[in-house]
Amino acid sequence: MFEQLGLIGCGLMGGSFALALKKAGLVKRVVGYSKSPSTTDRARQLGVIDVEAPSALLAVAGADIVLVAVPVAATEATLKSIKHLVTPQMLVMDVGSTKADVAAAALRALRDQAGSFVPAHPIAGKEKSGVEHADADLFTGKQIVLTPTQQTTQAKLQQAREVWTALGARVISMPPEAHDAAFAAVSHLPHLLAFALLYSIAGQSYGQDYLSLAGPGFRDFSRIAASEPQMWRDIFLANQDELLEQSKRFQQALYAFEKAVKRGDAQALEGMIALASETRAQWRMGAWPALQTSAGQAPSAPPQP
Amino acid sequence: MFEQLGLIGCGLMGGSFALALKKAGLVKRVVGYSKSPSTTDRARQLGVIDVEAPSALLAVAGADIVLVAVPVAATEATLKSIKHLVTPQMLVMDVGSTKADVAAAALRALRDQAGSFVPAHPIAGKEKSGVEHADADLFTGKQIVLTPTQQTTQAKLQQAREVWTALGARVISMPPEAHDAAFAAVSHLPHLLAFALLYSIAGQSYGQDYLSLAGPGFRDFSRIAASEPQMWRDIFLANQDELLEQSKRFQQALYAFEKAVKRGDAQALEGMIALASETRAQWRMGAWPALQTSAGQAPSAPPQP
Repeated sequence: MFEQLGLIGCGLMGGSFALALKKAGLVKRVVGYSKSPSTTDRARQLGVIDVEAPSALLAVAGADIVLVAVPVAATEATLKSIKHLVTPQMLVMDVGSTKADVAAAALRALRDQAGSFVPAHPIAGKEKSGVEHADADLFTGKQIVLTPTQQTTQAKLQQAREVWTALGARVISMPPEAHDAAFAAVSHLPHLLAFALLYSIAGQSYGQDYLSLAGPGFRDFSRIAASEPQMWRDIFLANQDELLEQSKRFQQALYAFEKAVKRGDAQALEGMIALASETRAQWRMGAWPALQTSAGQAPSAPPQP
Repeated sequence: MFEQLGLIGCGLMGGSFALALKKAGLVKRVVGYSKSPSTTDRARQLGVIDVEAPSALLAVAGADIVLVAVPVAATEATLKSIKHLVTPQMLVMDVGSTKADVAAAALRALRDQAGSFVPAHPIAGKEKSGVEHADADLFTGKQIVLTPTQQTTQAKLQQAREVWTALGARVISMPPEAHDAAFAAVSHLPHLLAFALLYSIAGQSYGQDYLSLAGPGFRDFSRIAASEPQMWRDIFLANQDELLEQSKRFQQALYAFEKAVKRGDAQALEGMIALASETRAQWRMGAWPALQTSAGQAPSAPPQP
């Protein structure tokens, strides 16, 4: 049980974390701060936070758990602004979608207090952002990836694991670099491809006519193209090395498909589609091969660039 | 009311059409043929067809409506095999996902009987194929694109429109080339991209670990990658010119995104993502801008290659 959650950033993710902690009976009060006073005000009216703080630093004063739920690009400045009140007893986490940059930012910003910081990435979200859509059950049954820095203490990592588990989430931990390589492949690149497809169609003379004929396959494929521009701009820039590496590998695959099409090589084409189709058919969301044999163990680390 | 449906190909699409006609009380009996006798047998057991025909030609004998629901690559041979029994009174349609190749095949195969043939593409489907999944309501509320050939008579086009409308579908007609350009953009290319992504990830040393971390965005984006290999092999080969043209345009868009990422040009990147995001957010499945002002009119024709 925590005395006080210091919530910095009262949006969908931060608001949902506050509501989830409250619902689980894990926190006595929530002190919240948002860059926009109207957001903080709205969060209080909705019962997401109990007290409005006039600054990030003051949201941390007296807290024993802190969640930094701001855009990834603002993480370092936020951590710098609260550093003086971070203590070894405090658990500090973020919710960003990239982790190597956050881990590095935390070491720079928190210095001797970096042991309290556990970078976290909840694999959860909604198409709509904002505190109005905050949901106490957002993390139930979802996966949380913790990516401890070189300074994160074992005690804080364990405490973070317990908090998210108590919220009904499934926790895995891995190095920040492994996280970023994996998410470049299965999240950041798919977003880039979906954005590029819509951008390409929108730029064609008959693009709107084409779109009027699109069906359920297009609907599902392109859903993520409606995601928030600022957030994805920041993710692409923060994880650009891994993203560009995955995009390069993807383009090699696309080129191989195109070559088979141009040559009219039906056999090669069918074989390549079959490999993709079987891989997708066998995939199950939330199936953690590594965890099934050894609870708490991370999947093997991906190759480092 | 039709006396007899000659159904060639008793799979998901053909079976659903037969069931839908029966449910609407539009046909007295269904005579079916499939390449595989066990499929035809199963279709009869399930009540999808009433009588098994030993050949495609014999399924057409005595029919006043014929549906060719075979893989696109088999359309020409099928039409050739039934040509001698096609009459000007008969309505003959297919359900293929590409249309310029089908229209050309019909002119070659049916010659002086080509007036009876109306190429059709129902924008409907399921992830599972086979007559077991045939569904009388598959076309309800769905869109049907009719792409008359130069020989298709106005009377047959009108009759085709009435049949699909009676099944609860919404009908639009356009030239086969316009259809293929549009579907290359909003269906065939998305499938190609989804296949290439899965193929790329499957080929990486840590691909399975990456996949174990994928969430809801990946799930929806990649759903179409589980589609049937033979069918998509045929579609890619049949519509390769339009597909490769759309793929080229897509790669130009992807390159522009990558350039902005590499340069760290946050403003350009955000602008491009915003255009994509707004385009997708404004899109509604089944919203037919051209039809809202003038029923039955096709959207403007896309540029010819």
